[in-house]
This record gives sequence, C-alpha cells and structure tokens, in this order.
Amino acid sequence: MTMLRTANMDELPAHGLLTRLAASPPDLSAQGTLTPERISSMTVDNASFRLIYGCERVTPEVIDALQALAGQAKAVEKFVAMKSGEVINRIEGFESENRQVLHTACRDLFGDPPCHREASQAAADELEKLAAFLNALENKEICGPDGAPFTTLVNIGIGGSDLGPRAVYHALAPFRVPGRTVRFVANVDPDDAAGVFADLDLKHTLVNVVSKSGTTLETLTNEALARGLFTAAGLVPERHFIAVTGKGSPMDNPDRYLASFHMFDYVGGRYSVSSMVGGVSLSFGLGTDNFRAFLKGANRIDRAAENPSLRENIPLMMAMLGIWNRNYLGHSTLAVIPYSELLSLFPAHLQQCDMESNGKSVNVRGERLSYETGPVLWGQAGTNGQHAFFQLLHQGTTVAPVEFIGFRQNSLDLDRRIEATTSREKLLANLLAQSLALAAGKRDDNPNKDFPGNRPSLILVADRLDPETMGELLAIYENKIAFQGFVWNINSFDQEGVQLGKKLANTILAALSGREKPGPLSGAMMEAAGI
Amino acid sequence: MTMLRTANMDELPAHGLLTRLAASPPDLSAQGTLTPERISSMTVDNASFRLIYGCERVTPEVIDALQALAGQAKAVEKFVAMKSGEVINRIEGFESENRQVLHTACRDLFGDPPCHREASQAAADELEKLAAFLNALENKEICGPDGAPFTTLVNIGIGGSDLGPRAVYHALAPFRVPGRTVRFVANVDPDDAAGVFADLDLKHTLVNVVSKSGTTLETLTNEALARGLFTAAGLVPERHFIAVTGKGSPMDNPDRYLASFHMFDYVGGRYSVSSMVGGVSLSFGLGTDNFRAFLKGANRIDRAAENPSLRENIPLMMAMLGIWNRNYLGHSTLAVIPYSELLSLFPAHLQQCDMESNGKSVNVRGERLSYETGPVLWGQAGTNGQHAFFQLLHQGTTVAPVEFIGFRQNSLDLDRRIEATTSREKLLANLLAQSLALAAGKRDDNPNKDFPGNRPSLILVADRLDPETMGELLAIYENKIAFQGFVWNINSFDQEGVQLGKKLANTILAALSGREKPGPLSGAMMEAAGI
Repeated sequence: MTMLRTANMDELPAHGLLTRLAASPPDLSAQGTLTPERISSMTVDNASFRLIYGCERVTPEVIDALQALAGQAKAVEKFVAMKSGEVINRIEGFESENRQVLHTACRDLFGDPPCHREASQAAADELEKLAAFLNALENKEICGPDGAPFTTLVNIGIGGSDLGPRAVYHALAPFRVPGRTVRFVANVDPDDAAGVFADLDLKHTLVNVVSKSGTTLETLTNEALARGLFTAAGLVPERHFIAVTGKGSPMDNPDRYLASFHMFDYVGGRYSVSSMVGGVSLSFGLGTDNFRAFLKGANRIDRAAENPSLRENIPLMMAMLGIWNRNYLGHSTLAVIPYSELLSLFPAHLQQCDMESNGKSVNVRGERLSYETGPVLWGQAGTNGQHAFFQLLHQGTTVAPVEFIGFRQNSLDLDRRIEATTSREKLLANLLAQSLALAAGKRDDNPNKDFPGNRPSLILVADRLDPETMGELLAIYENKIAFQGFVWNINSFDQEGVQLGKKLANTILAALSGREKPGPLSGAMMEAAGI
Repeated sequence: MTMLRTANMDELPAHGLLTRLAASPPDLSAQGTLTPERISSMTVDNASFRLIYGCERVTPEVIDALQALAGQAKAVEKFVAMKSGEVINRIEGFESENRQVLHTACRDLFGDPPCHREASQAAADELEKLAAFLNALENKEICGPDGAPFTTLVNIGIGGSDLGPRAVYHALAPFRVPGRTVRFVANVDPDDAAGVFADLDLKHTLVNVVSKSGTTLETLTNEALARGLFTAAGLVPERHFIAVTGKGSPMDNPDRYLASFHMFDYVGGRYSVSSMVGGVSLSFGLGTDNFRAFLKGANRIDRAAENPSLRENIPLMMAMLGIWNRNYLGHSTLAVIPYSELLSLFPAHLQQCDMESNGKSVNVRGERLSYETGPVLWGQAGTNGQHAFFQLLHQGTTVAPVEFIGFRQNSLDLDRRIEATTSREKLLANLLAQSLALAAGKRDDNPNKDFPGNRPSLILVADRLDPETMGELLAIYENKIAFQGFVWNINSFDQEGVQLGKKLANTILAALSGREKPGPLSGAMMEAAGI
C-alpha cells in the first residue's frame, strides 16, 4: 500500500484563491445576503441528518474553492485509505506510533463487503464474545454471590475510555435496560470514586476496567481502590471485575478478571466508542440490539463520507466550513451547542476527540506548520447556554462560530402545549432563532442594544435522538475531524503532547513518596503549593 | 454619590508601557527564566487561598505596570463604590437597566459594619424568613400530605438561577443533609424535566421555582409541566411549590406558592448564588449553617478585594493577569481546570459569570471599544482533561492560558496508598506537573515530541473544599470578573445581547402556534429544518 502524500494546505492551489475570497467574505447582516433561497439551497442530507449551512459566511464560490481544496488535499482518498488499513498514524522519518487507524472497521459489519476484512472480523469476534457474556448475565450463569443478577456496572476508565461511553449512555437514557445502571469513575481524585461507590450494592455490581495500554495511572489507581472496597466487603474481586484492554497489555490477564475483551492498537482511545470500550458498558446498559443499531448508524455515515462532493457529504462539508472559519476567517474556537438535554455530555466528548486529534503543530513529515490547526472546542446544551454565554456570542469582541444540533421529536414522553406551543417547539424555535440572530443581527440606535450580526453558525437536525442517530452523529464528528486533519496534513491519531506532563508528574510522585529528591523547579512548586 | 468616570483602557498612561513590555514578554522556556526563587516569590495569599503565578509570562516590571493600570482605571475604587451601592449597571446617555450592583451585600453580614446597610438588612431578613421555613420543614409543620417530611427539592431555574446553585451543591456533596436531595431542571427541552421527575416521590417533593423577572420562558414552561404532574398525581401544587423571584414580578404571588422568597433588582442572575437564588436550594440541601459558612467565605474575599495592591489581592491579581494575557499577549480563551471532581460543574458556572458579564463591545458610555474584552472561558475537571484536550494545550497552534485550582486534602474519605502515594498526591502531582510542563516545555529532536513551552498558567490552592472555601472561591472569581470589567471600562452587569434571540424565537413560536405567518427568513429556516 502506498502512502498518499500531499503538500501542506498552504501549498495547494486552492489556498491562494481561498485567501483572496477571505479578503471580502459575504456579510450575512447586509441587506440581501441572507435570503430564503439561500437558506433552502444550502443544505446537505446524509442518512437521518440534514445540515443547514446558509448561516455560514460562504458563497457558492467559496464552497467551490473549499471543494477544490478538499480535492487537492485528497481528503476523501485519505479517508478511504484509512478505512482500508493504510498505516496513517505515523510521522514520516521519525519514531512514531506507526499504526493503522481502523475504528471504522468496528462498525463495518452490515452487509456490504467490509473495507478491512480482518479488523471487522476481529470486531465481530469480540461482539460475539460480549454477547455470550451478556447472555450468561441474563441467564444468571454469571451472577452475584447470592445468585441474584448484576444490576450495576461501574466503568473505570479515563479520556477515551470514559467520555464517549459516558456521553452516549447519557444520550440514550430512554433506551436503558430496565433494572440496570451504568456508573462512571474517571478522575484520580479519590472523591470521584468515593461519590460513585458510596451508595452501591457491591454484591450486584460489576466493575469494567478500561485501559488500552493497561498502564493508565488513574485507571489502575481507581481499580485498586475499588478492589479494596470489594475485599473489605468480603467479596472476591475476580468475580466482579471485567476488563477491556489491548492484547498483550499488562492488564490482559484473565486470572484477574471474570471476563476480558480486547481493543486493538489500530483503534485510538478517542475513537473507541464503537469498539469494546463503548461496547461493554453500552451493551450492558442499553442492550445488545441498541448497541448494534448505534454501530449501524455510524456505519451509514462512514459510507456516506466516501462521497467526494462536499455538497453531498455532511462530514466533509463540516470539515471544510470549519477550515474556512479557522484558517481563512481567523476564528480560534468552535462552540458545539446541542439543543438537547440528553446530549449535554456530548460537547465534552467532542472536545477530546477534536482537540486531542488536531491540536498539533507539525505535519505528517514532522515539519512545523505555518497555519493554524484544531480550534478550542467548547459548548453546553441549549437553551441553557442562552442564559449563560450567548451574550458573548452575540455582542462580544471575539466571534465564535457555532454548530447547533437539534431534533424534531422528544426522546422522553413528557411535553405539554403551554401558551399554544409545546416545549419541543419552544426548544426548536430558540435554536433556529439563535442561528438567525447571530447571522442577521439588528441595528439599534442604542449601541448597547445593537447586534452587529454576521456571526457564522450551522445546524444539524434529525427526527429523533435514538441509538442509530446517535451513531450517525458520532461518526459525522469523527469523520469531520479526520477530514480536517487530512487537509491540514497532520497526523490526527497520536497524542505525544500528553507525555511531558505525565513524566513530570512521575518525578513529583517519586519525591512525594520519598524515593527521590525533587528537581529544583518541582521542589519550589511543591513548597509554594504547600504539599 | 458621584460616578467614578475613567478613560478607556487604551487611553490610560500604563497602556503604552504595557504595550511596549508585551513586545518582549519573558520566555518561560528560556534557560534561567523559571527559577525556584521566581516560583516562591510570585504568590499571593488571601483567606484560605494561595495564588501561585510564577508560570504566567510576567516580570516584576509587568506586574508594576499592571498595578499602575489597575490604579489608573480605579479598579478598587469602583469595586468599593459598587459595594457601597453606586448605580453602576448603566450605560451613560442611553436607556439601560440603571441599577445598583449589590450581590456582595448578601454576604456582608459578619460583624463589620456593612458597606450597604439596607441591602444587607434585606438579605438578612430573607435569610431569617428562610430559616423559619426550614424550621417548619424540620418540625414537620410543613410536610407532605401524609405527614412525612419533604425529602427532595427540585430547583426549576435556568442560567443564573441554575448554574451557580447546581455547581455549589455538587461541590459540597460531602456536606449534604442526610435524607435530603436537591435536583435541578433548567432546559426547556422536555427531556430534562422528564428525566428528573421520572423517579421522584412527588408526595415528598418540593419544587422551587426561581426567576428574578418571573417571566423566563423555560422556567415558566417547566413549572407548568411540573404542576401538571402534581395535579395528575392527585396532589395540590400550592402545597409543594415555593418561589424565589423579584419583588413585584408576575411570579410574586403568594397564593400560588407555599412560600416565597425575594431577590432584588440589584443582584444580577449570574451573581445571585449568595442571594435567595442559591440560598433556598443550598440551605435545604446542605443546611443553614453550611450556607452561612459559604456566605462568610465569600465575605472574607470581598473584604480582601478592597486592597489596592494586586500583590496582596488575589481577585485583582487574577484580573490583571487575565488582561495581560487577553489584551497584551493576545490570547482569546481562558481554560479553568479544577483538579477536583467535586468542582466539575464549576467551569460551566464561571463560563456564564464571566462571558455574560464581559462579552461586551461598548464602554459605559456606549462607545465602541477598540480592544478585546471577555475571553471564551471553558474547562473541565483535571486529571480528566489531561486525557482529553491537553494535547492542544501543550502542542496546538493556539495558546490557551490556564487557571488551575487544587486542594491539599480530600473531601470524601476514600483514599489509599498505591505504589507509595495516595490518589490525592497523584492528583496534586499532576496539577503541578502540568503547570510546569506548559511553562518550561522540553526540546526534542523528534519534532512530534517537542514541547515549545512558554504557555502561561496560574494555580489557586487551598487546604480543602468546604462551604467556607467554596464561598471564597466563588467570590474570587466574581470579583476578578468585576475588576476586569472596571479596567475595560464596560458595564459587566447587564446582558442586552440575549434579547434579539429571544425576540426572534417568539416570532417563530407565533408562527408555530398558527397565530402569525412567519417572516420570510424564519419561514425558510423552519422549512429547511423540517418543522
């Protein structure tokens, strides 16, 4: 297989054109820019989702230029190569992880010939192992010491082994298996585990320890804390603890666990929700069928994302609009605001997925880039955000592009018509109104009530948040992030930037344990902090 | 009382000096910049907190210049004027809220002569009314229809009536009154209320409806939903619902509520945690003594913040360091990262408090500013963030200053020595290590493993998170935000930027209810979104 080499983004022919276009981008607040025709024509449909991008600061000419840029960067070809197993997690000429990137294979299980047969087969095998384990729970072949079923699963993991499964479990609350609960412990702060374990019935609790490397400090520490609690309660941890880890990791030790499931080195932590990392807790909490529907939704988008035309490819269009905002209009942050309480944890997952992937400064050959890469991604659920930070979005000195997400129907069945509209209608009306208000603005003689407008946003909308659309939404963002990395010519799949802090923490820990004298700076910090 | 008028920040004498100093700020990664002496000398102590700012990109000369800027902007004089009741929530020459800003009076109750006697008296009166009500709950003079006590309080509010009380209640989990729980409903998304009310024992549930204006769409809608649930369960809402609202608001109607508590127009929503807005739910959930300790902590900082020397005033120092990073070094975001799971909701509260206060573009006279104001504030708890977005903090193309928060002791009693250190020590070691790593960096021949360093951060540290230190921490940030507004010469206490979205939402709602034809743009948006 040959690597698809491309030049840096600023060396591609379309870059010059985009730079020229960015010198006079459309003013959305100007009379005649924002028209009904514009809004209805600037949409893309994939699977259950519609993307509405008429409130971005683009013209058809800008979209054409972004299409050219995506083509010249071979964004879709690289995506297809990724799905086919090319070793793209690497830095040419330097020591690097040197791995394939095959999270998409975990969901490439639905009829069509898989892009990477072995990886999809391995995923199918783990799913089968998991189904057998869940079956044994169901039949009470595996159960608490008193013969009663396990009702709670505590997921111990951090980062990629926590944020995605936690966000999806929260989002799909209406689909939970009755009588079962999943809880999450991530932080090495012992107050986290203490809070979660305080009110648990340990006898009927499974603990799922998740770490690809099997060496994550926080996770091993919390596992040890948790094992201590089980032992103190007269229970045998090996009958309650299960593991998700990489083959051959220090945690890959069946003697210590009731069951073990594998993830593979070609699935990055932040892309691992569709692997066993999400699979175990989500299948326990939501049921096997719902987890499969989730995978199926993701797979639908993975296929749609192969379309080279951004006008027909939501992830690619969002990627290129993001690059337009970031590199050509100069906006350094991105707000993701789901108008859905159930998606309230989703921005934190995306924050990881995006910022850990694309917060990079060198290209795939290790050369320092002269343009910006990943933005600071932040956000909260709407309408809550309207009563929090929207003041700055509308009238602050910094423009922050927004991605809104909404659903036409409720997930839970509580709604009433109050003053002639339902709560759902109120929610959606606010979503649309915010996007329009940011774009159109409104002049006022009172400068404090003046809205400059011309602030970009887009809207993603589907009928209903359910396992399948949740899978679609996740894959839209995963693929968007990958496309952006391809165009920026970076490796979106490693995370060397987290190493230095870990190393320094270890030297401070060595000092705290009395094993070593701290370095002069660490010592001064410890003294200043009084520890 | 006379208004303290000052020029815009860029017209103050120190501005030129700061601009010159910013042309060659210290490089924290350069040999000899970051020294043990620097770290130990760059600290400020107030009440229970220590601020460590040696890892900011400042020199003593920069601090002197920031001190001069704060002095020329009369930051402390304006703060004292605020506490004394000056009408500073106004835009000179234009229609505006024209109000005093007296949230500090709500906690100015501890011995010293209060800065504003009437406001503190009014706060004391409400606290007394609340104590009587809580007493009646305790004695079961007020109780469920079966004579059993109320065990749950559902707080219905949004923005300032939600984020602060929610974050503080979460932070003080170890101090909860046994047998009592507080839940929060904010979003107009009916899935929010549905999720909270699903498993409640309504008979023993109080609902606290919180809206200063008494007209907040989300809150009134959720109140109506909730009343419907009580009625459907054969219960009388008037025996379960209490209210916190402004005197004379449409909600100020004792016939509809079991009890009513007042907030005043001189307490802004985002600054209202210390008023009845926080008082009712926090006193119910944590007890009166804990709420008073919380107020006492806040008051200690309010007093410390009167010190004109920023080297002795944590909120002022943090305000000026933030202005240095924002205006002189050009960083557009601020990450707040508490190394404390219990503070995991605090960044969302600060996001509101800061961005709604200082996301402004005109000065106190309505003139457009030519410099940046409030940054985008974001963040999550550490160490979790290390496994999420720290990649970008260390190696991204955008530098994001960080404020770390930590505690020397646990709040809950679950910790163990694992590999010679406790979880708490691991948490603190990571906090210190991250700050050092961001500042010092580390060169590496492998460009992908190279850390440029020179990225600014500060640390706030105290012994333990408890009601008093929580009050201190809240006041540190509230006062920091106010100081920044004073220097930027803006009105930090209104929020006109949220009005346009509300208005547009109402026109869309009128269309959805069939009352009016939608405008052409709203109509196109509704059609594109399929609603």
